[in-house]
Amino acid sequence: MCASHFPAPGSKTDLEEGAVLTPRFGADGLVTCVTTEADTGELLMVAHMNAEALAKTIQTGEAWYWSRSRGELWHKGATSGQIQTVVEMRTDCDQDALWLKVRVAGDGGCCHTGRRSCFYRKLEMSGAGPKLTFA
Amino acid sequence: MCASHFPAPGSKTDLEEGAVLTPRFGADGLVTCVTTEADTGELLMVAHMNAEALAKTIQTGEAWYWSRSRGELWHKGATSGQIQTVVEMRTDCDQDALWLKVRVAGDGGCCHTGRRSCFYRKLEMSGAGPKLTFA
Repeated sequence: MCASHFPAPGSKTDLEEGAVLTPRFGADGLVTCVTTEADTGELLMVAHMNAEALAKTIQTGEAWYWSRSRGELWHKGATSGQIQTVVEMRTDCDQDALWLKVRVAGDGGCCHTGRRSCFYRKLEMSGAGPKLTFA
Repeated sequence: MCASHFPAPGSKTDLEEGAVLTPRFGADGLVTCVTTEADTGELLMVAHMNAEALAKTIQTGEAWYWSRSRGELWHKGATSGQIQTVVEMRTDCDQDALWLKVRVAGDGGCCHTGRRSCFYRKLEMSGAGPKLTFA
């Protein structure tokens, strides 16, 4: 499958009720991808895919993203060993977001800071306003 | 709190290890927001917030988004009754994504198609290529 193999999005009804994957890539060529751990449901990361990354993910069963910071295709875990094997993939109603449920190889982590999930900080309200705490 | 009350993002270390919320709004002025049901962990929707939506969410404890399709601030549930009360809010490592854990009022639904979650279709592989199934 090559990137051009995704059909163009059709009508609102086709997008919402259809059986054909027609991702709505944004002006930047990307869709948002939410990745959770398949067994625990834990939110691991939010990233982006271009058509090629999505095609490769479908083809290989491993998560590929588009790195916006590096401006390149990103086979998650190729360097760290934290390969994400896709257990299930879903799309949302208007097909501009994807959800990957994955199992993570290597040490099971995801975040480049060394944490398991990228969402390691919680917003707490205090008298002085919102504050991030590590938890 | 008004929109300008979010400090500008600092260094990479400040972003990743800091205790100050400094959201990295994109060129379109938006951050991505992932919303899950606080009790079940179910992924309900992926949406976007501008600074004002985020400020209002923090201020009111209810989810406000920016509707890209309508080009307006969106108090989720104001029309449908499906108000989302925020139980917890998290940010990711580089502060360009937010995670809301919510409890939903009204009929407990989220998607404008009438489903509970926007992610009601799963990608299945078949001989003819990927196909979306409702499950």
